Amino acid sequence: MDILNEINSPADVKRLDEKQLPELCARLRSYLVANVAKTGGHLASNLGVVELTVAIHRVFDTARDRLVFDVGHQCYVHKLLTGRRERFATLRSLNGLAGFPKPSESRHDAFTAGHASNSISVGLGMARARTLSGQNFSVISVIGDGALTGGLAYEALEDAGESGEPFIIILNDNGMSINGNVGGIAKYLSRQRLKPSYAAFKRRYRRLLEIVPGGRKIYRFTHGVKSAVKEALLHCSMFEEMGLQYFGPINGHDITRLVEAFEWAKGLTEPVLIHVITQKGRGYAYSERTPDKYHGVPPFDEASGLICGPGDTFSSVFGGELVDLAREDARVCAITASMTEGVGLTEFAARYPERFFDVGIAEGHAASMAAGLASAGLVPVFAVYSTFLQRSYDMLLHDICIPELHVVLCVDRAGLVAGDGETHQGVFDAAFLATAPGMTVLCPASFGELRDMLRYAVSELDGPVAIRYPRGPQGAYGGAGADASRIVREGGDVTIATYGVMVNIALDAAEMLRGEGVSAEVVKLGRINPLDCGDIISSVSKTGRLLVLEDSASPCCVGERITASLAVAGRAPESVTLLNAGGGSVPCGSLDELRALCGIDAASAASAALTAVGR
Amino acid sequence: MDILNEINSPADVKRLDEKQLPELCARLRSYLVANVAKTGGHLASNLGVVELTVAIHRVFDTARDRLVFDVGHQCYVHKLLTGRRERFATLRSLNGLAGFPKPSESRHDAFTAGHASNSISVGLGMARARTLSGQNFSVISVIGDGALTGGLAYEALEDAGESGEPFIIILNDNGMSINGNVGGIAKYLSRQRLKPSYAAFKRRYRRLLEIVPGGRKIYRFTHGVKSAVKEALLHCSMFEEMGLQYFGPINGHDITRLVEAFEWAKGLTEPVLIHVITQKGRGYAYSERTPDKYHGVPPFDEASGLICGPGDTFSSVFGGELVDLAREDARVCAITASMTEGVGLTEFAARYPERFFDVGIAEGHAASMAAGLASAGLVPVFAVYSTFLQRSYDMLLHDICIPELHVVLCVDRAGLVAGDGETHQGVFDAAFLATAPGMTVLCPASFGELRDMLRYAVSELDGPVAIRYPRGPQGAYGGAGADASRIVREGGDVTIATYGVMVNIALDAAEMLRGEGVSAEVVKLGRINPLDCGDIISSVSKTGRLLVLEDSASPCCVGERITASLAVAGRAPESVTLLNAGGGSVPCGSLDELRALCGIDAASAASAALTAVGR
Repeated sequence: MDILNEINSPADVKRLDEKQLPELCARLRSYLVANVAKTGGHLASNLGVVELTVAIHRVFDTARDRLVFDVGHQCYVHKLLTGRRERFATLRSLNGLAGFPKPSESRHDAFTAGHASNSISVGLGMARARTLSGQNFSVISVIGDGALTGGLAYEALEDAGESGEPFIIILNDNGMSINGNVGGIAKYLSRQRLKPSYAAFKRRYRRLLEIVPGGRKIYRFTHGVKSAVKEALLHCSMFEEMGLQYFGPINGHDITRLVEAFEWAKGLTEPVLIHVITQKGRGYAYSERTPDKYHGVPPFDEASGLICGPGDTFSSVFGGELVDLAREDARVCAITASMTEGVGLTEFAARYPERFFDVGIAEGHAASMAAGLASAGLVPVFAVYSTFLQRSYDMLLHDICIPELHVVLCVDRAGLVAGDGETHQGVFDAAFLATAPGMTVLCPASFGELRDMLRYAVSELDGPVAIRYPRGPQGAYGGAGADASRIVREGGDVTIATYGVMVNIALDAAEMLRGEGVSAEVVKLGRINPLDCGDIISSVSKTGRLLVLEDSASPCCVGERITASLAVAGRAPESVTLLNAGGGSVPCGSLDELRALCGIDAASAASAALTAVGR
Repeated sequence: MDILNEINSPADVKRLDEKQLPELCARLRSYLVANVAKTGGHLASNLGVVELTVAIHRVFDTARDRLVFDVGHQCYVHKLLTGRRERFATLRSLNGLAGFPKPSESRHDAFTAGHASNSISVGLGMARARTLSGQNFSVISVIGDGALTGGLAYEALEDAGESGEPFIIILNDNGMSINGNVGGIAKYLSRQRLKPSYAAFKRRYRRLLEIVPGGRKIYRFTHGVKSAVKEALLHCSMFEEMGLQYFGPINGHDITRLVEAFEWAKGLTEPVLIHVITQKGRGYAYSERTPDKYHGVPPFDEASGLICGPGDTFSSVFGGELVDLAREDARVCAITASMTEGVGLTEFAARYPERFFDVGIAEGHAASMAAGLASAGLVPVFAVYSTFLQRSYDMLLHDICIPELHVVLCVDRAGLVAGDGETHQGVFDAAFLATAPGMTVLCPASFGELRDMLRYAVSELDGPVAIRYPRGPQGAYGGAGADASRIVREGGDVTIATYGVMVNIALDAAEMLRGEGVSAEVVKLGRINPLDCGDIISSVSKTGRLLVLEDSASPCCVGERITASLAVAGRAPESVTLLNAGGGSVPCGSLDELRALCGIDAASAASAALTAVGR
């Protein structure tokens, strides 16, 4: 009999006998491995929090209490325990189960998640609102040690400590963020792990003072220098300095101890941080050995652990070219915010460790530190996912653009991103990068263009430059060069302007239109800031109709800027159609599905063009 | 004889006899007070760092070494000592001396400053570049305790500690940021201030262990439990936890001790944080008593300390109305990021302390915490300067807009800002707020509209709302209401569309045009997202000519969006002219000067309209 079949809500978890819990955890693990092997998704982080999640549901009621996951890729066990097991096979698909917490999916998901380090801020807000409005529920934020490197988490810890609000922070410490931890907090936590618990230490210290002849004198002395010895001994915790109760570290795979700690924390009238040690990837031999590899994973073979290699991607092509550039030019260095593998910098890190900086999940610092590097003569290349670069917006404006520094941003996962949903779409950077004074924004449509544009950005351009490219492989278009604008197909009835890999969609649409007897000219922009509308102006002077196709969100999209540019120049075409990703809240699904959903697939573009020509 | 007249470069500071330094410092203070009384500017922070700045110039060579100020409003003494005394009367004026460090102004200004908490990131980048490229200079970042509440500073401290780079961080601790410090770090620092210095403590502890009979046993015990006692005693510093050397606290008005500390730090081969205690506002009775009042100050009377009251401003009107709303609705609460007075929340804080949250210089956390408050049923109003809201961009998208939460952003200092220069212009929010999915953006043009729009946003709207308004008083236009769009002057030759207080400029331009026999229709948008172009479309169908006038930066400006909207609707006018703040890098100057500089004053607008009508 499958114990999972008995779990249809958190109440069923509470109902189990304590002795049944190991069986439940083992079954959850085998279920996770078998299913994620088919759908792909985040595996290792979920295998690490099986007992932790079960313990949370033994103590709290997530229909009433607010459980806020940080990042959220560790929510699968929670989803399985809160009535979503039967939909689990639809994970990360259009209209299926989201890979991250989503309040619209279940009342057990207290808040949206996706980006790191926000859970303490959000949880503190909930706790304050509860107290102010006289409500009665617990707030529990679950944050990994990796996410603690983000400054946002620190700002929130400061405020939480000051607030005195009853509020439970569970630090899920697996000794690594996506890439293994970076910086002081990691060292600090690992030292905490080696220490005996404070309570035990305190007992031993007091006993010693009683035994030793001078003990009383020492005790008086410690009082004499006030907060020094005593405070130092008993409160030497970074978290206690901030005004939080600290408890731990405790074994995150021991449900009994976890439940005890959570029951204790539930009764507190002040903020508390519970430090829990877990093993990422636990319970599946392959992910225990290389948890990074199974962090976010495509479908794989369960028995062998074999992951289908994705072949070349924009990320890997970027990484290869940057290694070449670093060999030729000693000024070239690379920065990542805890995404070495994801952005394609693994080889660079190995070959040029002294010129490689992984700053942790700290995109703001990455941008400002890059500014410092550039101001002292190096050429920093900061490779980052589009959606996470949003964290650096002010630093781009203030530290890079105002001083006009030559920093190269390599913006990976730009445009629509499959599988991860609303929180991971790269649909805003085309707009926010254009607002940054003096920022050149390049959009390679192929691997060849990426190589040429990277070289051009590093070696020939000056000032701030961004190169934006999507996740995954290139399409049929395989051109090269760093041109600002290029006519890639000639035609006389309608002009389709586009940029990046969307050129493939535009060319497909043009081919469909040919079947309808309509001749479309396709203009591909290699640079979207500053705009070069020369080709578009000559094209529309012939066709009279402009259609701009892009996978960016629409207020402030490139299509609006092109249209305005033509109007100001007095070259407005008779008809303008803008096809884009709309408001930008795009759910999970495959790339083809998402394009169709937004109306920016080839069929939609062809159909819009037919309307424009009056058909 | 005036000792200041002998100081024409930092070399002259080095040349002085140590005994002359108190005279120099006294003279610097009287010079600062007398001059800032005339020009206005940042006074209290500069009075606090006189000895600190002199000591830096006694030890370092800022033409070679990199001195990075955080925020930068404490750079006046530095400017006076680096050959800019004669231009000091031009402070904060167009083509005058900037109120913040500016590399284009002097080689002694190592980096742009204005926003808080970036100096450690930037300094670390410089230090790394120096080491990698085999250069030889010191890097010194000077950061206040207030700026340490920003998560960016924490991210950088983490990385600096890990890096091992020789790098000097001077923590200028005056026990208050703009509003007095907030949170754990402030408590921590004040505790540090009470402690004897570590070095002194260590000596006393060792002596004690030698005297006391059980001392050796204790010593062995402390080794036995490894890092516990010894580490706790000697290294229980938040900064040491992060891997930085820590030295201090030392008296920041004792030049001899400062020089000793800096000389020692200069020789280190690792990162160090020197904790310096200073008194904000020191040496001028009025600013010692109320340093906040003299933080950023308009011209004042030196003898009496009397500051000209500015009368009602958008900030004060906002604050008054929010107090009324809070009285009527218990769900209304207010958030500031260390700008209580600046954004007009002083009365709110006094009347509703339990619903008022000053989170420190932590705009990211403020936004995400607001999301938490809203998700649990309150109506949070986050009042923040436009330029600092840039720090919250990702949190707006991820924590407020994706979950569609009813958070009200009150965006002060929107549009052009006089006096503070490039780093403080509010010229990007009209674009970046529009990119946030579902964000309603309202633009009051008068106090009456601000009151009505605030009430409408809090009580009637749902989802995310931003209300953006400028610094200072309203103009001649004194309408009320929360209309999305309104024709405020009728005419038949050209349509001038605008929003916010720029309506005053548009109306002035229309009046000038009347003198030229040209009849301009003025359409004022009260809401710039989502756009309501109905009035503009009917107006241009009559005039055929559109001019959009705004004080926002141009890529992604409202004018581009209006133009695109009309073109897509097939209602493109025959001529379009966009007048705006260009790329957005606008220097300091008066508001009139800056408008003229950008070509968005009434004369420029009238002239552009004449061109549009073919005159």
